[in-house]
Amino acid sequence: MKIKIINPNTTQSMTDKIAASAKIVANSDTQIIAVSPQMGPATIESYYDEALSAVGVLEEIRQGELLDADAYVIACFGDPALYAAREISSAPVIGIAEAAMRTASYVSTGFSVVTTLQRTVNMSWHLAHRYGATPFCKNVRACDIAVEELEVPDSDAYRTIRDECKKALAEDKSDAIVLGCAGMSDLCLKLQNELEVIVIDGVAAAVKQAEMLVQLNLKTSKVGDWASPPVKNYTGILSGFGVR
Amino acid sequence: MKIKIINPNTTQSMTDKIAASAKIVANSDTQIIAVSPQMGPATIESYYDEALSAVGVLEEIRQGELLDADAYVIACFGDPALYAAREISSAPVIGIAEAAMRTASYVSTGFSVVTTLQRTVNMSWHLAHRYGATPFCKNVRACDIAVEELEVPDSDAYRTIRDECKKALAEDKSDAIVLGCAGMSDLCLKLQNELEVIVIDGVAAAVKQAEMLVQLNLKTSKVGDWASPPVKNYTGILSGFGVR
Amino acid sequence: MKIKIINPNTTQSMTDKIAASAKIVANSDTQIIAVSPQMGPATIESYYDEALSAVGVLEEIRQGELLDADAYVIACFGDPALYAAREISSAPVIGIAEAAMRTASYVSTGFSVVTTLQRTVNMSWHLAHRYGATPFCKNVRACDIAVEELEVPDSDAYRTIRDECKKALAEDKSDAIVLGCAGMSDLCLKLQNELEVIVIDGVAAAVKQAEMLVQLNLKTSKVGDWASPPVKNYTGILSGFGVR
Amino acid sequence: MKIKIINPNTTQSMTDKIAASAKIVANSDTQIIAVSPQMGPATIESYYDEALSAVGVLEEIRQGELLDADAYVIACFGDPALYAAREISSAPVIGIAEAAMRTASYVSTGFSVVTTLQRTVNMSWHLAHRYGATPFCKNVRACDIAVEELEVPDSDAYRTIRDECKKALAEDKSDAIVLGCAGMSDLCLKLQNELEVIVIDGVAAAVKQAEMLVQLNLKTSKVGDWASPPVKNYTGILSGFGVR
Amino acid sequence: MKIKIINPNTTQSMTDKIAASAKIVANSDTQIIAVSPQMGPATIESYYDEALSAVGVLEEIRQGELLDADAYVIACFGDPALYAAREISSAPVIGIAEAAMRTASYVSTGFSVVTTLQRTVNMSWHLAHRYGATPFCKNVRACDIAVEELEVPDSDAYRTIRDECKKALAEDKSDAIVLGCAGMSDLCLKLQNELEVIVIDGVAAAVKQAEMLVQLNLKTSKVGDWASPPVKNYTGILSGFGVR
Amino acid sequence: MKIKIINPNTTQSMTDKIAASAKIVANSDTQIIAVSPQMGPATIESYYDEALSAVGVLEEIRQGELLDADAYVIACFGDPALYAAREISSAPVIGIAEAAMRTASYVSTGFSVVTTLQRTVNMSWHLAHRYGATPFCKNVRACDIAVEELEVPDSDAYRTIRDECKKALAEDKSDAIVLGCAGMSDLCLKLQNELEVIVIDGVAAAVKQAEMLVQLNLKTSKVGDWASPPVKNYTGILSGFGVR
Repeated sequence: MKIKIINPNTTQSMTDKIAASAKIVANSDTQIIAVSPQMGPATIESYYDEALSAVGVLEEIRQGELLDADAYVIACFGDPALYAAREISSAPVIGIAEAAMRTASYVSTGFSVVTTLQRTVNMSWHLAHRYGATPFCKNVRACDIAVEELEVPDSDAYRTIRDECKKALAEDKSDAIVLGCAGMSDLCLKLQNELEVIVIDGVAAAVKQAEMLVQLNLKTSKVGDWASPPVKNYTGILSGFGVR
Repeated sequence: MKIKIINPNTTQSMTDKIAASAKIVANSDTQIIAVSPQMGPATIESYYDEALSAVGVLEEIRQGELLDADAYVIACFGDPALYAAREISSAPVIGIAEAAMRTASYVSTGFSVVTTLQRTVNMSWHLAHRYGATPFCKNVRACDIAVEELEVPDSDAYRTIRDECKKALAEDKSDAIVLGCAGMSDLCLKLQNELEVIVIDGVAAAVKQAEMLVQLNLKTSKVGDWASPPVKNYTGILSGFGVR
Repeated sequence: MKIKIINPNTTQSMTDKIAASAKIVANSDTQIIAVSPQMGPATIESYYDEALSAVGVLEEIRQGELLDADAYVIACFGDPALYAAREISSAPVIGIAEAAMRTASYVSTGFSVVTTLQRTVNMSWHLAHRYGATPFCKNVRACDIAVEELEVPDSDAYRTIRDECKKALAEDKSDAIVLGCAGMSDLCLKLQNELEVIVIDGVAAAVKQAEMLVQLNLKTSKVGDWASPPVKNYTGILSGFGVR
Repeated sequence: MKIKIINPNTTQSMTDKIAASAKIVANSDTQIIAVSPQMGPATIESYYDEALSAVGVLEEIRQGELLDADAYVIACFGDPALYAAREISSAPVIGIAEAAMRTASYVSTGFSVVTTLQRTVNMSWHLAHRYGATPFCKNVRACDIAVEELEVPDSDAYRTIRDECKKALAEDKSDAIVLGCAGMSDLCLKLQNELEVIVIDGVAAAVKQAEMLVQLNLKTSKVGDWASPPVKNYTGILSGFGVR
Repeated sequence: MKIKIINPNTTQSMTDKIAASAKIVANSDTQIIAVSPQMGPATIESYYDEALSAVGVLEEIRQGELLDADAYVIACFGDPALYAAREISSAPVIGIAEAAMRTASYVSTGFSVVTTLQRTVNMSWHLAHRYGATPFCKNVRACDIAVEELEVPDSDAYRTIRDECKKALAEDKSDAIVLGCAGMSDLCLKLQNELEVIVIDGVAAAVKQAEMLVQLNLKTSKVGDWASPPVKNYTGILSGFGVR
Repeated sequence: MKIKIINPNTTQSMTDKIAASAKIVANSDTQIIAVSPQMGPATIESYYDEALSAVGVLEEIRQGELLDADAYVIACFGDPALYAAREISSAPVIGIAEAAMRTASYVSTGFSVVTTLQRTVNMSWHLAHRYGATPFCKNVRACDIAVEELEVPDSDAYRTIRDECKKALAEDKSDAIVLGCAGMSDLCLKLQNELEVIVIDGVAAAVKQAEMLVQLNLKTSKVGDWASPPVKNYTGILSGFGVR
């Protein structure tokens, strides 16, 4: 099976990291194709970045359809363009926030999300609400780390994240950690070992969730809101996006 | 004061209609500038259209900043890119769904939204939730009219919408109607007269709300999530969108 | 247009202050008529005061109908008798808590209400719920200031309120302040300047909201719960209140 | 023990009926004192009536304090002035809507409220929410009967109510009926027998709830919001209401 | 009237304590029959204990039916098997968590539950939600006391609980305490006296609630979910539990 | 990997059917062990049956621990004893209702649950709430089929279920069906083909979910509520259940 993972930002080192995390957990007969879009923001740290990243995500879904991808993963914790992506493919499309939160709910009675910047905390709460995870999400905490710092080899990022996780466990009375950024996926195992608690990486969770849906032959329902978008003309730099 | 109204789709006849509706209610010293973006979908009828319309909306906000617009209105009932737009301007940005629902809540104990396609009904409910309007929103009803039909001079659109409004009042026990599409703004007065009930057009509501915020000197708060987006590189067809 | 502002308590100095705050933001062609009722409590600091203040509020609405007021503002943060007032007039009636919270929601991702006494905190939360503002209201905080202290020229009230606002911004991670008492309306600008953050005064917000509804020709819907009350006999000291 | 039941309206025949219903269920050593206030509306059928009925309710609580009433029941399904009443007495004060809904929740997995006028339906939903009864309240249904019709000996009221109850059981899949008006208390047993289902009368439920709280020596907590109202001057026709 | 109180655990000293607490508040003509089951856990401190305690609870209900018990109380704050018990009797069945939380809501604007082990905190929140008590429940706090410690005559349990109650009142701004374990019922009066605040013991509350329902002749509704279970074969150690 | 599937009822034909459904979707290296307990109800159709089925479920988990099962599935749509089971194993335990609802939420914007008896409808809603699925669950519908009818070869069960599914799709505007009983698992494919819409069987979903968690090496968190139950004595027919 072919799973296309779309890192909605254009930072190739993060895409490589995501690909590595995905391959560790993928089944042996799963082909992981991890890409960054040809356009858009270097990292996603605002509603603005998130809104504009949709263009690249949707372009990559369109390209994926030509390759007959069996499923897609959108590998940014804001799950940008998730519902739009589902409209233009019948293959399952999984967001990493969605997969991480739902997966955590099977093994944890209350998790803390540990994410990068304070300004994205509300966004995570909004997603928790959208996915029905509020009963399980005890807190969302920011580390005040810029996403790009996660790409700097010898930064303090790991220690800062670990310390926030420790505070989460103690103060929120959480029993699991959900990593709030795809760029943290390489830290998952190390954190889990050091903290001695379950740590959920959305990239891994989404890949397994995608495999599961494909194996169950479950596709995005096309009789409701996620039917193909109406045929329509698009203009300007988006002229290639018209649905026919 | 200058209010820039952005019709997120590229259908100029709808933009003209929106401009006309806005000018009827605007204060005499308010300058209405209504535009369609240079890019994007002809109409917005899916999550896909909505996600991609963000590019044009944000481009128009950026242009508006050069003109020192005092406030912005996003004139599509899905309020596309609303939170992103607020990040790149300190001038108030108002969505028409947001304005319509909140305005209705001052004069109605329970309204029905009457919109175009069934597939957008959940989207409206999602917005009602986001804006805290669920206690006031008794129902969201679709007419199964494509948005472009609203632009056809002698279509049955008016009668179809009116009949759905009548059903809403009778079956939902609503005491007001909220029009669920900017393209219905020219029907508001006619419907109100024929139905003898309050009908709220989001374009008009948003323009007055924008004027009010400007007069109160209230700007988008920049100390929270809606601070300016972090400086960042953008590439490809979006290379012009990088924040500096 | 004539806007009648009813201060539900009988403290004339507060009424004068409210009138002044209203006039600063009112349009040039808006006539502000601010009154205290002929009966009722000197200040409103309990459910008991609030319940009894309804008599004066409703009497003033009744008087306002004889003057053809175009809209009413109820200028106490408990919004006493708001729904009852809407029944006996078709002119819009706006509560200052309602207007403050909804107005804040256009420019803030999360505000803190700063009010007088701890015992009114739940009341504000109840209103936040009623108006759908809970997603935006991060906290309600009391200063332990009696309402009448706000009328004492050289009291510590300003400093106490300012300090509570500072704590709100830091601890609640709010990005705006909503003043939880009409008696604080004269402090709004000073607080906004000193705190360098948006501060919302409900009196100003309600006046502008009232103007907006009048300009849009939106009246309280009379086909639902807010229809005129059934004709009925009233006795005793309330004998004048019977609806005919 | 002395339980004072306050019928918030001035219709003595309804007060008599309420007294009779209360005496049937009261313990042998409970003294039932049922009164109508000396002021206010003949019946309560709107927010306006409800707001103004508070004056009489609170006056009767004040009179009750002189008589050392052990508990109070407010016998109107809108529970007018309930929280205010709790502030001026340490004896328990019980509303009939509150008692009916909570009592029903012990024996029913989902009840329907059957009330008088459509315009009070939202009011009941609001109370259901306030008391945490929404999970148990399947529907609120109006019979379009004016309250005073319930006082007319040979009216169709009983049949109309019974038929609405039947519809409630069938359509709402309810397993119990809550009567939504104190004026229906005399119909409870007859309905229960004819419908062969549990029918809850709030008057009876509130009397027993009051007895129970007195027997448990539980009084209204005075360390929170329901502490005695601050001492204060009242003027005009309410001058007697000042707290000292 | 005969009220059978089932302590779902097998610790007889706790059953005796519960019986004593019940008899203090019961009416003179109420016969209290308090039992521990013939099977099951010594104390209930986990979902596991709670699930298995259902067997004994249901067996005791079945036995109670032979004795014509008029009502049942399940005296463990997790209310184990409450809904199942209601199916096999038409007599009212009351859980102590349910009774405590609802009773508190008549006299408190916000209570704190003080319970034994941290691991049961979520369980209490879940019950608060099920019973509609979340608006009234400000916090659930654990003392980290094992249930059996409550049975040790000279343990520190009382002081630990009292101190947690004090913290609850100060930090949660609660105005009442709900005891979160039947084993604390003997501490209620002492705590109330020392804390000078209302303290609710669920055993006492449930007994009075049961008396009230019997006096009102309200039985568990048998036309909905709580109808008698379908006739069915049971096997193994549960072979005696088949419904015929 | 070894997945033990526990059918909480004792009907072997249903266990066989569940095993068959599980084996169809399981990975080639997954060993499916499907059992019915040695005790308990023949089918589960009430809270009573559900409560008592916990004994057999927990016994089978205990047995499974001796076999080093890698994960467990509880194959009844009420998910009996799910949280208790998680306490006594560190292997993941998945309920079929939980798995079905969460899995549906990846591919459907709104599903209908179609289940057996009306009396279990509230139970499903309660689970939908517990798992955060209420935003996705449009309706729960009963077919009025007893569970044992599903085991009768030539019954009308299939047609009845299919017709209810059709009504669900039309009336609820759902875009997917969730089967509300493990005994329907063999009908899933046939229904999906005939209805041309996604149909989710919880047994299949739970098996895949279990596999995914094992592959991700995610175990039930033992630092929170689901830690091993405290050591304790059990007596009577449950004496074997004491935790040591």
